[in-house]
Amino acid sequence: MRIALQIEYNGKNFCGSQWQGDLRTVQSEIETALCAFLRCPPLRVVLSGRTDSGVHARGQILHFDYPGEPPAPEDLDLWRLCWGLNGILKKDIAVVNACLVKDEFHARYKATQRTYVYRILNRPQRSALDSGTKLFISRPLNVSAMQEAARPLLGTHDFSAFRSTSADPSSPVCTVERADLLNLGEGELEFWISANHFVYNMVRIIVGTLVEIGLDKRPVTRLTEALSRNDRELAGPTAPPWGLTLVSIRYPEEFQLFGCQNNQNPVREVR
Amino acid sequence: MRIALQIEYNGKNFCGSQWQGDLRTVQSEIETALCAFLRCPPLRVVLSGRTDSGVHARGQILHFDYPGEPPAPEDLDLWRLCWGLNGILKKDIAVVNACLVKDEFHARYKATQRTYVYRILNRPQRSALDSGTKLFISRPLNVSAMQEAARPLLGTHDFSAFRSTSADPSSPVCTVERADLLNLGEGELEFWISANHFVYNMVRIIVGTLVEIGLDKRPVTRLTEALSRNDRELAGPTAPPWGLTLVSIRYPEEFQLFGCQNNQNPVREVR
Repeated sequence: MRIALQIEYNGKNFCGSQWQGDLRTVQSEIETALCAFLRCPPLRVVLSGRTDSGVHARGQILHFDYPGEPPAPEDLDLWRLCWGLNGILKKDIAVVNACLVKDEFHARYKATQRTYVYRILNRPQRSALDSGTKLFISRPLNVSAMQEAARPLLGTHDFSAFRSTSADPSSPVCTVERADLLNLGEGELEFWISANHFVYNMVRIIVGTLVEIGLDKRPVTRLTEALSRNDRELAGPTAPPWGLTLVSIRYPEEFQLFGCQNNQNPVREVR
Repeated sequence: MRIALQIEYNGKNFCGSQWQGDLRTVQSEIETALCAFLRCPPLRVVLSGRTDSGVHARGQILHFDYPGEPPAPEDLDLWRLCWGLNGILKKDIAVVNACLVKDEFHARYKATQRTYVYRILNRPQRSALDSGTKLFISRPLNVSAMQEAARPLLGTHDFSAFRSTSADPSSPVCTVERADLLNLGEGELEFWISANHFVYNMVRIIVGTLVEIGLDKRPVTRLTEALSRNDRELAGPTAPPWGLTLVSIRYPEEFQLFGCQNNQNPVREVR
């Protein structure tokens, strides 16, 4: 009996999502809470993918196999499971939803698209209301240059130039299905990106490059050049993690995850 | 020489906005920071109005008179004033903007409209990403009933039924220019209200009444009945402070506050 969970977390006080021994990670917190709630020996959960230390998530997906003798499907109370886990978990992590899935479902290997948002606050003075989920930039950004620069990201490209130098054995070829820089007004910017696959630190390096273009430190064409020449040196620095949120993961319709609610990207209108 | 400041704060760790001796209030924090930055004896600032303990603000306005011998207007560096104050203030309070105003300007008496938003998160499970600026309600709310109930608030009415019983000598008659309950999707609701004047706890009692209507504890007509019969007993409980944010204050055009930016209500589109 395989169960999928949708979880949310503020990444600030986590050492990333993946299990790392005694460090506080998203995976270890969920595993510990599941063992406590289900009163079972240690078990493993599989996340859709890794988020770095400091990165937040609103629609992270994981799966696990019910330990020991599972209850009959009609006796499985998923609402009670969510409430129980949320009672055990600290307030910077929460289970939003749970559903029973086919044994063929796999949170990581069956994902067909991932969507991230990177938030920027661009105004002269800092904010007292931001809860650490936006990158604050006080110098004015040229938003239309950034929007123009982001356009060529769409489509299938080799993203070697936007990959952190640390070893990442995955293919550098990604298909980007959405890449929008939204100007929400009052200095609030959001960079939305959806792709079938992301290389390590890809979103943060793209944002670091866009910010340098917005600050006039690099030409608008620099992002396209970095893409076509596969040159990490042409791309900008890695933007800090706290502006980044994993929004949603898409799976094939056949899995009917959460009544497919999660399979829709949330649409945000530009003010 | 009179100066107006636009300030922002997270109300959680403040005992409200108004000076209260040794307690940490918005007024005392700003006054202390101004004295430190301007190196002057204690001075007084005048806020547009009071916000309760726990209530947040994005567009609170205050004014003060430059202490002692003011600099020539061309020597006044308002950008440096904002930066200097933000360097002194703790991170839950910030100065967003500053401008020189006519001596006739008065943050409280010249205000012609105030706008508040009350945020609600209505979904089965709690959030890990909310920073304490939303009221969480897990039972499903009937949003269209709440929207219908809010409509009669528009216009000029006696709001005695929506006034906290503690002494409030101001007139109970208020003209409401906007009263919208927006459904932003994914359980996020925002109640926006603008009026020339608010009686004590008015927004929180209106929201408390709307929530009870949304939970089917009171009929949709109850808000109109409370309004027409001036009966506090017919209205609902006072909603908690942390969902409430003071968004903006409007002043007559003649004062040209912050290039009148602040004189526009931010418009939020419904998703």
